[in-house]
Amino acid sequence: MAEKKKNSSTRERIIENAKKHFYCDGYSKTRMQDIADDTGIALGSLSYHFKKKEAIVSSILKIFLERLYDHTLENAQKPLNALELHFYASIPYYENLLTEENTKRFYYEFTQAQSVHSTNYGGSELADFITEVYHQSLKDYHIFVDDAYANMAQKFGYGGRVQMVIDYVEGALGTVNIAEMANFLSSSREMLLGVPKAELDRIGQEAIAFNREVDFSSIMPLT
Amino acid sequence: MAEKKKNSSTRERIIENAKKHFYCDGYSKTRMQDIADDTGIALGSLSYHFKKKEAIVSSILKIFLERLYDHTLENAQKPLNALELHFYASIPYYENLLTEENTKRFYYEFTQAQSVHSTNYGGSELADFITEVYHQSLKDYHIFVDDAYANMAQKFGYGGRVQMVIDYVEGALGTVNIAEMANFLSSSREMLLGVPKAELDRIGQEAIAFNREVDFSSIMPLT
Repeated sequence: MAEKKKNSSTRERIIENAKKHFYCDGYSKTRMQDIADDTGIALGSLSYHFKKKEAIVSSILKIFLERLYDHTLENAQKPLNALELHFYASIPYYENLLTEENTKRFYYEFTQAQSVHSTNYGGSELADFITEVYHQSLKDYHIFVDDAYANMAQKFGYGGRVQMVIDYVEGALGTVNIAEMANFLSSSREMLLGVPKAELDRIGQEAIAFNREVDFSSIMPLT
Repeated sequence: MAEKKKNSSTRERIIENAKKHFYCDGYSKTRMQDIADDTGIALGSLSYHFKKKEAIVSSILKIFLERLYDHTLENAQKPLNALELHFYASIPYYENLLTEENTKRFYYEFTQAQSVHSTNYGGSELADFITEVYHQSLKDYHIFVDDAYANMAQKFGYGGRVQMVIDYVEGALGTVNIAEMANFLSSSREMLLGVPKAELDRIGQEAIAFNREVDFSSIMPLT
């Protein structure tokens, strides 16, 4: 137990130091060595906790998303199913990642870095978390899809999300605002899996109304 | 008219020389200067015809797709709507791009190069051609979507396609074969725009049956 506690604390310190570097220097310029140095551990020890820089980001984004989920649940006026919760929380997720300049630079650089190769979808904390949401929503809506199709929808959706974030930051989405983009991204994979568009539109409108009422501005990914 | 004809012939020679370079050296290693040298023109003249290397590829792929469309129409046993034609031709499109080793290397490198930035969707011959197909299919199926949504669906679909091609080449799609992937890609944006999944599944099955009967192996993008 003592060992476990120590590990968990080192992990937390790694994440805190990584957040500072990502915020100040961006994603690309931050090296694993910088994070190890600030944490006062060897690079080998850092690699024990996080194999790659993107694994640290995955952990940071998962913690961020969980906090948005919690805040959503605390403020919701009715019980939410998995998909509603995800829609509600996805708007502040993208708003808080893509508005403040340093955070936006970090997320843009991270997204670009992700876009060149197929990623190891398994083993990413954020991907696992989101996959759970989708599995639950398929159950809720009594939808069955075979594994090969679900796999294609996941990978296609991943590439689509990456492209849209890049396009948004580069100004290629025109007048689309972040909430509309977040709703589109929350809807798209569900549509490919067969959740009716009318249901997704309804949830999307509720999510926008909810986000007008509830303040998420204090829940930031890096600061 | 003489001027026009001369231009068009230079353009054809550029494309032929580019194809040879892309086939032998891959996309990344081929420089615009190489293509200009082989064509016996200055780099500035080449830029007059094609601003960037990717514009040459866009032209090559559009010509390739048109030939597949023609061969499909010559062999079809019934009239095809725009979407059916696109499904039928998309299977040999991806099969002929992703099977032969040199062609696959070229297409993989090109796709990777496309994935890092938002692309100029307008002005690409291939993109314009495919956009026309989608507009026609929306008419055929009496679907109306607003421009902002259609724009998001287009960009999302673009990113999804890029990711799936990369994943396919890198082996991340598991047992999915090229025809299944082609059908998924032909379906996905249509689903996001609201064409019923049952209709897309029907066309997909027809496309696979058609491609079992008709030989497209002589229509290659680079050779």
